[in-house]
Parts: sequence; structure tokens; C-alpha cells
Amino acid sequence: MNRINIGIIGLGTIGAGVVKLIHKNSQVILQKSGIKLNIKKAADIDKRKKEELMLSNTVFTTNANDVISDPEIDIIVELIGGTTKANEFIINGIKAGKHIVTANKALLSQTGNKIFNTAYKYNKFIGFEASVAGGVPILKSIRESLLPNRITKIYGILNGTTNFILTKMEKDNLEFKDALLLAQKLGFAEANPEYDIKGTDSAHKLQILASFAFNTDVKFKDIYFEGIDKITLDDLKYIHSLGYKVKLLSIAKLDLRHKIYECRVHPTMIHTSNPLSTVSQEYNAILIDGDAVGEQIYYGKGAGAFPTASAVVSDIIDIAKKILNNNEKIFDRSFQISDDLTMKKFGDISSRYYLRFKTCDKPGVLAKISGILGKNNISLSSVLQKETGQNIVPIVMLTHISKESDIQRAIKIIDKLDIIKSKTNIIRIEDNM
Amino acid sequence: MNRINIGIIGLGTIGAGVVKLIHKNSQVILQKSGIKLNIKKAADIDKRKKEELMLSNTVFTTNANDVISDPEIDIIVELIGGTTKANEFIINGIKAGKHIVTANKALLSQTGNKIFNTAYKYNKFIGFEASVAGGVPILKSIRESLLPNRITKIYGILNGTTNFILTKMEKDNLEFKDALLLAQKLGFAEANPEYDIKGTDSAHKLQILASFAFNTDVKFKDIYFEGIDKITLDDLKYIHSLGYKVKLLSIAKLDLRHKIYECRVHPTMIHTSNPLSTVSQEYNAILIDGDAVGEQIYYGKGAGAFPTASAVVSDIIDIAKKILNNNEKIFDRSFQISDDLTMKKFGDISSRYYLRFKTCDKPGVLAKISGILGKNNISLSSVLQKETGQNIVPIVMLTHISKESDIQRAIKIIDKLDIIKSKTNIIRIEDNM
Repeated sequence: MNRINIGIIGLGTIGAGVVKLIHKNSQVILQKSGIKLNIKKAADIDKRKKEELMLSNTVFTTNANDVISDPEIDIIVELIGGTTKANEFIINGIKAGKHIVTANKALLSQTGNKIFNTAYKYNKFIGFEASVAGGVPILKSIRESLLPNRITKIYGILNGTTNFILTKMEKDNLEFKDALLLAQKLGFAEANPEYDIKGTDSAHKLQILASFAFNTDVKFKDIYFEGIDKITLDDLKYIHSLGYKVKLLSIAKLDLRHKIYECRVHPTMIHTSNPLSTVSQEYNAILIDGDAVGEQIYYGKGAGAFPTASAVVSDIIDIAKKILNNNEKIFDRSFQISDDLTMKKFGDISSRYYLRFKTCDKPGVLAKISGILGKNNISLSSVLQKETGQNIVPIVMLTHISKESDIQRAIKIIDKLDIIKSKTNIIRIEDNM
Repeated sequence: MNRINIGIIGLGTIGAGVVKLIHKNSQVILQKSGIKLNIKKAADIDKRKKEELMLSNTVFTTNANDVISDPEIDIIVELIGGTTKANEFIINGIKAGKHIVTANKALLSQTGNKIFNTAYKYNKFIGFEASVAGGVPILKSIRESLLPNRITKIYGILNGTTNFILTKMEKDNLEFKDALLLAQKLGFAEANPEYDIKGTDSAHKLQILASFAFNTDVKFKDIYFEGIDKITLDDLKYIHSLGYKVKLLSIAKLDLRHKIYECRVHPTMIHTSNPLSTVSQEYNAILIDGDAVGEQIYYGKGAGAFPTASAVVSDIIDIAKKILNNNEKIFDRSFQISDDLTMKKFGDISSRYYLRFKTCDKPGVLAKISGILGKNNISLSSVLQKETGQNIVPIVMLTHISKESDIQRAIKIIDKLDIIKSKTNIIRIEDNM
């Protein structure tokens, strides 16, 4: 039996899940790996966690530095979230000779390079599988199993909260804000849901995925992201009638010939024949295209205490095996820039578009709108205008492949017209996934 | 740069794919891993492979022993298939101090234990990701990413050939033997398709998956398997009208409380609401249930030169990293029996059943059949009998949950009746996946 001492900083939902999972499945873990995980120290500022998780006086502490300074601890698990304190604990942990496991996507997507470089300098491992898609092993698959591939496409449903809200809107005929309230009530959305619904969380995860998939240094600040808060129930109904569903999709595509890639997060129309359109509730799914393996899909729970804890514990075991094998060299430097790739400006992307106008019911409205679109190189594939019997009339248009900057310019002009009664809703369409 | 010398035995479809992939993506592999793979020797009895793969005189050989005896080779890749010679090469390779990578499911499912034990004794690694589901990293996910989980269910579409045939039958209205001919013409089925269509290949893969998922010594000979060759186009039509699809499913379930598991392969009715029902053509998919992660699905190409080569090369890189790190201990003994689990007898499984009788159109036929079923504890959930205007009439029945041995006993009696015109077709139904 090989014993590995770990220290946990942060006993919130995931931290508590890690403690419980290690206790519940210690026998399975030992049988499958030959390793006994010992929680030597666990820190949280909330003293009630001690009792709640049945931790002894010698294990529980309210001071994170007790974990970092314990010379017998091999691996520190950082699960406090946020970026300031978490960064400090991780860097100090590495410098104190500890390997690190974290689920902190916000931190990694913003200062990952610094953390990975520090770890490399001190010859320590960073496990971060739990940072993207919870229990779904998408990072290990990209970094190890698909290593011999040139990965050219990633389409991810990476945020369970927004997928839950979109599913509820669709199935229970709810408007966005009612579905959000329901999600909050059921624990699928936080009291402050901004990170999720505005697309920030999905962009963090995309930054991590794309960096490793394309082996380049994707800058978070360059990723265009947009949330689901502008989607109305009416939009969903039009979209369904056209044979599509809407998902908050994290998209990364690599154009190898031109050495340029794009990374973006926005509500996206996906045809119902595409498997990703069937991913509902709080589930995550990632479609990946590699030049050797072709298209693959990974599907599972992307959040929640136990799915995420599973990823954390499997990272711990991976590092524990390396410790016990006296690994001294770290070959895995795939976070390093190794290609001369640049990110495409968002205005330069091409897509088909769903445009939903709110106009007044006057002669010549359609001609006016389509005229402006035409002048901006945008041609239409279909137009939908239903009788409403009201003064304000929605008009839905689907475009052929157009350039983002052309769309933005045209809509800016259109939205200033008197006949337009509210800001036009733009939803991008992905057909050839 | 770290150079690793590999030797390949067998340059058929997959072996050739490995050579091509290593050449094509050597730059990507080097960038992502820091490792340069060098094909030091490659053996095949077919001399034409030398030119076809542009191998030099010093690399190509027709003698596998040249690979095994080369002292500079670190890893041997066995891709000849079959069980006799392959076993000999692998065991000799291990004894000569080489690590092994193989895609040979038939060999592993039959004598895997011996091979793993020999490797353990000589402190060598066996990579075998490519043996199940081609480029889909299902074994690594089970053995590493899901390690902290108790896995209780596996449902796999593990054979691309049969899935292709079932898709063609369904979409192009073909009978089984015509769909098989088409599959052979398009290269999706071999000239001798027995291994695929009879379910043997799926059972081999299930043996490997279940052994690692349940961490027990599943015996191939104890796995019940049955192929798709008895399914008719009429069956598929009835089944579709009932809201189901048919897949050749590899099923493993663990009942932890009673320490008993079941492993079986047979055509299975899956409701169209289940994501596995949408897996078409030559694709593979595996649904796994772990106590921490919940349900996950892995989907991708399960066969073909490049998807399989991707798995082989990723195994090579994994082992190469261990070699370069001077790993000396092998912790991964998850193939070892660690639980006191037994396999359920096939007769003891429970399922719902589709039964298709061919009877003559006489009064009392339905009463006779349903009477025998009733006496054997089988109750019906639905009955379908359509007017055909012919003497021979098909009757389709769906049962409630029944015991396999009850079904077998009842059908044996029914098939002896004068009113029954051909052997009754039995298809099992999985509802609660």
C-alpha cells in the first residue's frame, strides 16, 4: 500500500464532494490504483465544515497556510474559487514543493500560463481536469488520447446552468427570467448568475480547451463571448419551427492553411439532426474533430459536487502515481506556444445568421430592411413574417453565409430606423459541424 | 528532444495507418509531447508493404524476430491480429525487455490475464486502448479518469460493421444479407464477416471493458453473445412503429449489493429517446454509469486505419513518457481480481422482450401462444397482429419484465407447435439505461 497525503483548501460544494468521495470510495480507489489517499489537512474559513464533514481537530483548520506549510503533504487541492487568494495559495503551494490540483477555470484562463510556468520551474504537476466539463475527461482526452491528432474543431456545451435554462424555456414555455428563477430555486444557478448567463464561464473553459487543443496561447481577452439573456421564448419558437435548437456554444476552429483560429461563445442555432442539439438539462457535451480520429463526442455532467470531485480525485491519483514512481522530469509542456497561430478578429468570422426584427406594421418595411442587408453583402435564405394582429410585428430572417462585420454594420443602421421598435436579435447558426 | 525507438509487427490496415500517422503528424507529436518517435523496424510477411509505405531496407523486414531481437527498440507494436503468433510475439517481446502496444481484442479477451501478468513480472507496460472502440479513449477513461468511481453499467455499441448494417437495413429498406453485401462492397465488413455479425467481436470488447470497469476477472467463455443475422427487415419495421431502434449492444451491469454482474451481447431494442439510438453508420458509442460522475457517453469512430492508429500512437506516447521518466514501478494492476464478484447465469437475467411469431391464420392461435407464455410467468405489455391476406401471419408481442429462462422455456414449447411456421425471433429490450 502506498499512502499519499493530500491537503484541501476550500470545503464548499466541490471540496466537500472531494472529502466525501475519498471517504466513500477509498476501497475502490485502493483496489484500482494501489494507493491510499489520506486527507492530512483540510481548510475552510467556515468552522461548521469541520463537523459537517466529520473532520478531526488535527485535520481541519481555518488557515490555508497550515496546509501549505505541512511538510508531509504531497498534493494540495485548491477549491476556493476566485482568482486572488487562489492564485496566491497555488503559487505558494508550488514553491513549498507541492503538486497542485484545481478546478479553477477563471484563474487558469486568466493566469494559467504563469501558474504552468511556475510549476514547470519547480518541477511540480498541475491537475486541472475538473476545470472544464466536470466529470467528463475532456482535457485528458485532448492532451493524451488525441495527442497524435491535429485538432481542428471544438464545439462545446460547457455551461450546465445556461443549458438547463434553455431546456426549461423550451420544454415548459418559460421566458428567460422565469427559467432563471427556477434554475436558482433548484440549485442549478447561483444567486449571482452573471458568470454563467453572460457566457463568461463558457469563455473561460473554451480558453483552456482551445489552448491545449491547438497548442497555442489563447488570450482570454481576445475571446468574443455573449450570453443567453437576450433570447426570448418567441425566438425559441421561431427557431424550433425552422428545425433548429439553441445552445450556448463554445466554438473553436483552426484553419491550418492560414494559421489562424477563431474562439467564440454565443447562443448558436444547431440543427435538430446534430447530436449536440439533444443535449439537455444541466448536461455538458463536447464535439471534437481530430485529423486521425474524425468526429468524437464526450457527454456527461459538467457540474455538481460528485462529478467534479471525480475529476479532482482522478487528477490526485494520476499525480500520486507519478510521485510514487519518483518521476523527475515533466514532459508535458503542451501549454507552451508551439505554433505561429493567430486568432481571427471576431468581425472576420463567417456564419449564417438568424435576425429577428421588431418592426411596425407599415408598407415598405420589408423592402427597407432587406435593402440595407443587401447593400452590406448579406443575402437571405428565408424570411418569416406571421400575422399578429398587433402594431408591432416580428420579422425573422435567416441569411446565407455572411461576414460578422457586415452583419454588425447593417444591424447598426437598421436599428436606427424609425420602423424598428427594439434592438434586433442576432443568433448565429452552425450548419457544418 | 527525446527519441524513442519503436518496432511494428504487422503492416495491414492498422499497421500501415500507424506508420502513416507517425510520419504525417511527427511535428505535432513532438510539439505536444517533446518526443520524437522513430520507427526502427517494421515487419510484415508481405514484401510489397516496404514500397507501399516507403520504408528503407534497414527498417523493413519480413521476420518479426528482427523486431523482437533489436536491442535498441523500446516499444513493440503488435498489429498482426489472430491469437497464436500474436501471443508468441508479445510474450517474447516482453521477455526481451520491450513494452507492448496492441489492438488485439481477441487475444486480450482470451489470454489477457496471462499477458498482463507476464508484463507485470517483467515490469513492462501493455498499451491496448486501440482494442476497444478504436480512437475513442474509453479504456483510459475507465482506468484513469473514472478510477474514483464504482462503475455499475456499461452499454456499448462496439462493432462498427453491425451498426453499419443495421443502419443500412433501416434507411435503405434492405434485408440483412443485402446490407451485409453492401457493407462488404464498401469495406465496412470483411470477406469472412462471422466475427462481427455473430457478436464475437463485441463480446471480446465487452470482456475487456467489463474486466476493467468492475475490476474483476471476466471470463470470455461466460459471456452470452448473439449476432444480428436473424433480424429481418420486417422486425425492424415493427420495432420502429413501436418507437424503438435495434442496436447490437454489449451490456454489463453490476449489482453491488449481491456482488453479481451480468455481461451479454445481443440485438437490443432501445427507445428512440435514448441518445444511443441515434448512433448510426460505423460509429461506436459507450454509455457508462459511475457512482460519482453519473451517466456519460463517449462517441466516435470505432474502427478504420486512422482512428485506431491514433489510439495506438497515444499509447506509444504514454509509455514513452514513462520510459523517459525512468519509471520503475507499475502501479496499474487494475486487471487484477479485487472483488468477490460472480457472473450471473444468462438464464437468470431479467428483461423485457420482443417476440415475433410466424403462425398460420387459424382461430385460437393467439390464445394458445399467450396461454403458454402465461404458464411460464410471462405477461404481455402489447400485442401487434396485422392483416396480411396471407396464410402465414406474424404476431409481435412485447412482454413485461420476465426472466430469460422462462422465455427460453416458453419459446421452446411454442416453437414445437404445429401452428408455428418458423423459429420465433427474440429481441431483448433495455428501457432503463
